[in-house]
Amino acid sequence: MQHRKITIAPSIMCADLCNLEKSVREIEKEGLDTLHIDVIDGAFSPSMPLGIDTIKRLRKITDMDFDVHIMANDNEFFIQEMINIGVEQISFHIESSVHIDRYVNLIRKSGTKVGIALNPATPLSVLEYVLPQCDTVVLMLINPGFATDKNEKQISYAIKKVKDLHQLIQEKGLNTRIEVDGRVSLETIPGLVDAGADILVAGSTSLFIKDKSIAENKQIMEERISEGISLGEAVK
Amino acid sequence: MQHRKITIAPSIMCADLCNLEKSVREIEKEGLDTLHIDVIDGAFSPSMPLGIDTIKRLRKITDMDFDVHIMANDNEFFIQEMINIGVEQISFHIESSVHIDRYVNLIRKSGTKVGIALNPATPLSVLEYVLPQCDTVVLMLINPGFATDKNEKQISYAIKKVKDLHQLIQEKGLNTRIEVDGRVSLETIPGLVDAGADILVAGSTSLFIKDKSIAENKQIMEERISEGISLGEAVK
Amino acid sequence: MQHRKITIAPSIMCADLCNLEKSVREIEKEGLDTLHIDVIDGAFSPSMPLGIDTIKRLRKITDMDFDVHIMANDNEFFIQEMINIGVEQISFHIESSVHIDRYVNLIRKSGTKVGIALNPATPLSVLEYVLPQCDTVVLMLINPGFATDKNEKQISYAIKKVKDLHQLIQEKGLNTRIEVDGRVSLETIPGLVDAGADILVAGSTSLFIKDKSIAENKQIMEERISEGISLGEAVK
Amino acid sequence: MQHRKITIAPSIMCADLCNLEKSVREIEKEGLDTLHIDVIDGAFSPSMPLGIDTIKRLRKITDMDFDVHIMANDNEFFIQEMINIGVEQISFHIESSVHIDRYVNLIRKSGTKVGIALNPATPLSVLEYVLPQCDTVVLMLINPGFATDKNEKQISYAIKKVKDLHQLIQEKGLNTRIEVDGRVSLETIPGLVDAGADILVAGSTSLFIKDKSIAENKQIMEERISEGISLGEAVK
Amino acid sequence: MQHRKITIAPSIMCADLCNLEKSVREIEKEGLDTLHIDVIDGAFSPSMPLGIDTIKRLRKITDMDFDVHIMANDNEFFIQEMINIGVEQISFHIESSVHIDRYVNLIRKSGTKVGIALNPATPLSVLEYVLPQCDTVVLMLINPGFATDKNEKQISYAIKKVKDLHQLIQEKGLNTRIEVDGRVSLETIPGLVDAGADILVAGSTSLFIKDKSIAENKQIMEERISEGISLGEAVK
Amino acid sequence: MQHRKITIAPSIMCADLCNLEKSVREIEKEGLDTLHIDVIDGAFSPSMPLGIDTIKRLRKITDMDFDVHIMANDNEFFIQEMINIGVEQISFHIESSVHIDRYVNLIRKSGTKVGIALNPATPLSVLEYVLPQCDTVVLMLINPGFATDKNEKQISYAIKKVKDLHQLIQEKGLNTRIEVDGRVSLETIPGLVDAGADILVAGSTSLFIKDKSIAENKQIMEERISEGISLGEAVK
Repeated sequence: MQHRKITIAPSIMCADLCNLEKSVREIEKEGLDTLHIDVIDGAFSPSMPLGIDTIKRLRKITDMDFDVHIMANDNEFFIQEMINIGVEQISFHIESSVHIDRYVNLIRKSGTKVGIALNPATPLSVLEYVLPQCDTVVLMLINPGFATDKNEKQISYAIKKVKDLHQLIQEKGLNTRIEVDGRVSLETIPGLVDAGADILVAGSTSLFIKDKSIAENKQIMEERISEGISLGEAVK
Repeated sequence: MQHRKITIAPSIMCADLCNLEKSVREIEKEGLDTLHIDVIDGAFSPSMPLGIDTIKRLRKITDMDFDVHIMANDNEFFIQEMINIGVEQISFHIESSVHIDRYVNLIRKSGTKVGIALNPATPLSVLEYVLPQCDTVVLMLINPGFATDKNEKQISYAIKKVKDLHQLIQEKGLNTRIEVDGRVSLETIPGLVDAGADILVAGSTSLFIKDKSIAENKQIMEERISEGISLGEAVK
Repeated sequence: MQHRKITIAPSIMCADLCNLEKSVREIEKEGLDTLHIDVIDGAFSPSMPLGIDTIKRLRKITDMDFDVHIMANDNEFFIQEMINIGVEQISFHIESSVHIDRYVNLIRKSGTKVGIALNPATPLSVLEYVLPQCDTVVLMLINPGFATDKNEKQISYAIKKVKDLHQLIQEKGLNTRIEVDGRVSLETIPGLVDAGADILVAGSTSLFIKDKSIAENKQIMEERISEGISLGEAVK
Repeated sequence: MQHRKITIAPSIMCADLCNLEKSVREIEKEGLDTLHIDVIDGAFSPSMPLGIDTIKRLRKITDMDFDVHIMANDNEFFIQEMINIGVEQISFHIESSVHIDRYVNLIRKSGTKVGIALNPATPLSVLEYVLPQCDTVVLMLINPGFATDKNEKQISYAIKKVKDLHQLIQEKGLNTRIEVDGRVSLETIPGLVDAGADILVAGSTSLFIKDKSIAENKQIMEERISEGISLGEAVK
Repeated sequence: MQHRKITIAPSIMCADLCNLEKSVREIEKEGLDTLHIDVIDGAFSPSMPLGIDTIKRLRKITDMDFDVHIMANDNEFFIQEMINIGVEQISFHIESSVHIDRYVNLIRKSGTKVGIALNPATPLSVLEYVLPQCDTVVLMLINPGFATDKNEKQISYAIKKVKDLHQLIQEKGLNTRIEVDGRVSLETIPGLVDAGADILVAGSTSLFIKDKSIAENKQIMEERISEGISLGEAVK
Repeated sequence: MQHRKITIAPSIMCADLCNLEKSVREIEKEGLDTLHIDVIDGAFSPSMPLGIDTIKRLRKITDMDFDVHIMANDNEFFIQEMINIGVEQISFHIESSVHIDRYVNLIRKSGTKVGIALNPATPLSVLEYVLPQCDTVVLMLINPGFATDKNEKQISYAIKKVKDLHQLIQEKGLNTRIEVDGRVSLETIPGLVDAGADILVAGSTSLFIKDKSIAENKQIMEERISEGISLGEAVK
């Protein structure tokens, strides 16, 4: 079915951080409607790409959907800040959360989509009761917060994990979306899409590949996405 | 002595965070050579204005002096990140530091100026052995990380604390600079300068007052600074 | 089988905290023999209903079974305090526990019943090896420590989770009791009992409903419990 | 000057925790108007005498002044809870506080008296800038949270510390009150009062000495207080 | 198949800590090639048997395989220290790890074998994606860090857990080794080996039983191991 | 006065950690009666030289005075362990201590000497009330736990800090001993002794200088100590 809708979510981290407005306009021009925004506290992971005030300011200049990925120890603080700003989806890591059901409710009550993010090694069994409560599951395909480390490669079990999650969602009769994040590259896109990925976080190995424009990269990404969809078609 | 040099350090937090390059050019055009950059982790204080990657990117577009003020629990991590980026001064909070002398050495050895930041209520006695080791003491005149809280006013004991520190520095025969941060406004500048402040962190109540341009605000600030210097002159 | 014994465990939090002795006498008068006592440290959850010294004092005035539910970060400290006081059951949260098997042994060795408490979103798979070691599993049906928050509703997956646990216990041939805690109300009791709940923590939506006496509420609760038992009967 | 007003603040911990209303009535009957309430989180100190919900309930039955002493790691949480309940004085420990000036403001803005509590070994130099901002300084004369430990004796330097603080307050021309807490006994009262104590936290070694009624104990305490005042008189 | 190779890994904790070189020579003399080394930080568990500098020094005097078992909160620090020393296997606890996949990669990249350690109550489901990435799974059969507590007995579900893990490994077609640690005694060895254990951490209840020499104890251990292997044989 | 007794306290960290008994015998042979033992948890400082079990074992083989220096976050745990082992002096860091007076009492009550350790930058004002309660103050002359870092040099303000402390002790009429720790070398000994140091922690730059025997090094140290004493003599 060619009607599968795959979302490309450009990572703001890869934009020009000193000229964000310009970067956002370029992205908008390509018809992309989702912006992936990483919020890291330097403690959950040793990284802190951009700040809350930057997001606040971004909110004022664009209507794109903000897909916020919190990697922090104090989830409640950051969730509340993102709700105050007004974003479209908030994902938090299950590994640093005690009151998971509470965070889901906080986000949901504010009219925001709920995502739950899983580290590479985190088993899907943690989703047993919370899967039906969330809109999206974010599968980290690299260790979260280490994107700028050149040694960090996509996990070898990426496809398998996406497939397992896809099957779990099917079994439960849900339509939870699968978001994949971490070295989602031109090479790996077809496989990930075929396995069931719905949202692709696009960074330096896809939409922001140097030497090519965002427009060009986007076109290639879409070809790879179509390939991925066809693979599945073929099977069925 | 009109030769006292007072530095105006515009706070990047008050710039246009979606058009930082443009903001920096405006500031540079006014002949200002220092940029005050707050790094907050959301845990030491419930705030996280801008990120490390933004600073990294800023470094590439300007030669201004970066005067970084870390408000964090894991000082060693953030100090190391700032050293890697290459900034001109790194200040850290003594309240969240165990190995103070070590941080001083780390910063010094990298060829960076060392600042120690004190919360409003922190006594000067904590500086007993570390004062001669540092270039700058940052006196917080509001609670750090709460700048966006409208209820947060400059502490009533601001002038007294600056004077006390100035006297301590004189007594020890040092030339440590005093940096004041927090609601440093047109009204309070003369008193602070008179009391001994050397570096003024300039934000929404001085250089970035709305309705006026940065150029206009800067001119008024300089008048206030001269007033402050004259006050002292008169006395002597 | 009408011989299923369902325990009603009144929550001391809902009693008159300035006249606990009187409250306890009222409860005892109704033939209830179990008192549910929440111990929260203000850190695991932002709440701290009553203190250890209050429990110590309560111990001196009644022989009711104390069913203590610890919601804390430092489980070992609170477990030890409860053992010293001499209570009948101690439950601790698996989400804040590293040495789970150790806590089970500590409690068991003191001659106290062992309970393990699970947050709403916590999967049953965490019980894999520890289920046979405990007398009771406490299923939180609201986020623990948020009972006084009016927005906090019983989780939609309450019945399912109780059923899943009941099945797991059956499969393993155990007779672990299922304790349900959180908005266990007159409306939800039949379903919960039918699903397999053995102990009902009774608070403001059942035994302590205002406008009615404890005696009246208790009678209605028992009717609902019977309904719940009958539902199951009918099926079999 | 016999017009020195010394406040006796009975510690609620020593009351009958299962019959608080009755205890409060007894205390009120003796004309005492201040109730000292310890809030401990089990982490700052291994103790948790009574809970927030108990204080909430107490608030409904008496108009006595609540003099709350927080011994906790998360001061902001407990301060906010006490403000919500509506108490007359909130003291917090400087040893677990980073944003001291902020807590002072939070309390002050709510119309509550501000106290700062110091552990036995904490030097008075920490009060340098915060002393003029607070109404009361609470000097702990035993290690906080260890009151039920029989081995815990009043510090040998109690009188000296009270005197030092008294002198500091005089020098600064303030009228900050000195509250002493920890084994304030019939034996030690005269000396403490003479040294400058204004508020005496009264527990098991004074107002709640067994074998005597509160009325009798109170009378003896007042005699000891008068003795203490006279000592000072004599000197002057 | 008598070709199953079972490794005996003597625990250095049971050696003569004031004469380690002598102890190591004795162990080497018996042809044992693996040394089990516990690294505990006093925080994950209340124990700290020996230090990093001791391991560094040990490294200089022997070529035995160092099988290091980290029980700590800051896994990354200790992993890095062990890599710097140059050991043959590093195991870390999954219960105190957030970036599990990252630790696996760090260890693997340094050319060291990777082990993941599980507390007694930790379910095998946590291994879902990480099992194929590791060489060894360490099953703790007592609570980790409590070896010197006489009350600490081997968990009753030891055999079951080893069997479950063995089956999981078989199902996935892996050859991950199973290491058992905690009261691995002459009595329990046959059962554990039969269940699938590959590496036996040998302490005070096997190789270091007093009254017998290491040589004698080793011989008895080997007999028990053979028994265990035969049990399995018989079945097949 | 040649009767000033200066103690040389060899640091066990510099001994042969695989042949501790032999090292201890060598030290004893030189008539040295004090052994300085560092206990670091890897969290207060990134180091963990040797373990508790090693100290336990050391205790069995020698009657030397154990002068234990704890550098840890959980002081109470390590203090209790050292008391259980039976050592002669326990020092803990004031920077990681909340209940300082309590730790002093715990140690004192066990019949052990009490030391308080100060980081380089820690002001002496923290000792205001606790100085008379302790036998020894340990002044760290390098950042604690970084002894193996070659870049770590003795602080430039070492002599000044020792002198300041010496004066403070004199003023209070106490006979507290001053222990200096960190690059106490042949070059710096005379100055430190002259300034008032009573106990010299002896490591790689004094007693354990390679190429010379402990006996030879000790003799040179004693000459330097005499020099230091004479310096003071001369002055008086």
